[in-house]
Amino acid sequence: MPPKKAKDRRKKAKDRRKAEQPALRELLRIPPGRKVDLSSYDPRATPAGPPDKQTGLAATTLMGEDLFELQERLYAAATGGDRRRLLLVLQGMDTSGKGGTVKHVVRVFNPSGCRITAFKTPTEEERSHPFLRRIFQALPGPGVIGIFDRSHYEDVLIVRVHDLVPRAQLGRRYAQINQFEEMLADDGITIVKVFLHIGYEEQRRRLLQRLDNPDKHWKFNPGDIEERALWPDYRKAYEIALERCSTRTAPWYLVPSDRKWYRNWAISKLLLEHLEELDPQYPKDHFDVDGFRKRLLEET
Amino acid sequence: MPPKKAKDRRKKAKDRRKAEQPALRELLRIPPGRKVDLSSYDPRATPAGPPDKQTGLAATTLMGEDLFELQERLYAAATGGDRRRLLLVLQGMDTSGKGGTVKHVVRVFNPSGCRITAFKTPTEEERSHPFLRRIFQALPGPGVIGIFDRSHYEDVLIVRVHDLVPRAQLGRRYAQINQFEEMLADDGITIVKVFLHIGYEEQRRRLLQRLDNPDKHWKFNPGDIEERALWPDYRKAYEIALERCSTRTAPWYLVPSDRKWYRNWAISKLLLEHLEELDPQYPKDHFDVDGFRKRLLEET
Repeated sequence: MPPKKAKDRRKKAKDRRKAEQPALRELLRIPPGRKVDLSSYDPRATPAGPPDKQTGLAATTLMGEDLFELQERLYAAATGGDRRRLLLVLQGMDTSGKGGTVKHVVRVFNPSGCRITAFKTPTEEERSHPFLRRIFQALPGPGVIGIFDRSHYEDVLIVRVHDLVPRAQLGRRYAQINQFEEMLADDGITIVKVFLHIGYEEQRRRLLQRLDNPDKHWKFNPGDIEERALWPDYRKAYEIALERCSTRTAPWYLVPSDRKWYRNWAISKLLLEHLEELDPQYPKDHFDVDGFRKRLLEET
Repeated sequence: MPPKKAKDRRKKAKDRRKAEQPALRELLRIPPGRKVDLSSYDPRATPAGPPDKQTGLAATTLMGEDLFELQERLYAAATGGDRRRLLLVLQGMDTSGKGGTVKHVVRVFNPSGCRITAFKTPTEEERSHPFLRRIFQALPGPGVIGIFDRSHYEDVLIVRVHDLVPRAQLGRRYAQINQFEEMLADDGITIVKVFLHIGYEEQRRRLLQRLDNPDKHWKFNPGDIEERALWPDYRKAYEIALERCSTRTAPWYLVPSDRKWYRNWAISKLLLEHLEELDPQYPKDHFDVDGFRKRLLEET
């Protein structure tokens, strides 16, 4: 795309952003240091969202182009020594749409510049190390967009619900996580932590949908039903994690996710706002452009 | 998507495939055991391709849906114990479009089910191990589509051109590579090795394009000009590699790549033909579907 057009589009995007007061991230951010009560957030809400699904889908598609271009700039900037990169952390109850977000939102990016990690139950090898070790190993390098489908937060969520480590150790993990994320930020990583908030009833609907479609059975995990019975415990564990780990450096964003189109729109928008703020630049020329052009033109 | 519609589409695709005799892969395959003379392949050719660019772009877009669905099946099948997966190996001279293939072809897939590795100049750590070690570490797991942007073939290409290892050792690498690839096949990996064939003049055009657009300068590597001067040596090295390593188990495909739309179409088609042959299936139910449905419906 010609640079002029790209610049125009980015300017327009910025103007748009300024016109929309406040930015979505202000609206969805879980205020650091504040008590969290998940029942006060409606999972069907569409804060600052487009008026309806159709408009929402169109707006998300439109953002795709900007996201793609900003990613290319971020990647290009890294070749010039810019260490900055972005890490999207996705957390939420089963069926909340972590995989769907990767499929629909992350797919707009150039896959070469993405590093996606789905964290499963830790292997025996992983369990033989401190919990942050596998997280360290999955971090994106400069210019790359990292995506975590589940994350180190599982170590204070499922681990809390099932009492997998002593309470005292668990209690220290929140501060350890905050320190860890501060270190990532110091190294140039912008962390965007998104909690996909769905309702208990919506989860039932989605589980039933999976059962009703034979092509979706492979996504159904009988264990999900057992975990569903622990819904109040998970909610409590999330409230504690969101409360203790929504920091100024790496705040949590709560995205109402009962409506998939809103979820995709909101996460695209959050990514866009963060990437626009980073405003990565193509690196300065580090070689003699005219000299090389001449050499190629004079070839015989 | 409703299963019925999906099945219809797959049947249509198969019928289409049968009607088109021979399959593209027969046409593009470098016949095992045959002498390779790259000057006999026209990089601007469009064998079995759509008649023009516009038709080609449309056909590629259309294949995207089938590729996406086949990938989902491959991924789903792995949850049922199917170990099969696919590995796309991309090789070609600088600017031949390895990155562009990832951007345009691989992007149709769900990024969660892809593992992309761009092999750069080996690090000091990598050089301290046998050359296949970093390749082993980048292999896709069951159900995943692996993509190599450059590969173990660099160890018989740039390494040959620049005499980086003793000739006797280099000479043994071809057989080592064939053995390695046979082992991958034994483990359920379908290897699709694609050589992106561009002409010397086309490379010049693309390098000049990069120089003419300031937003593309970051992609320009002054070293590319030095390597370009070694074009005949690289061509020779490619001829030897294609000749010795196009095997029945893992043949090389030569894709004329001067025309980007044809390159994207042909690689999409090669992937489609291989995935259709794999014909991955959703796994059989491993749980009591009706029991779980009842449980969810009876919740209060």
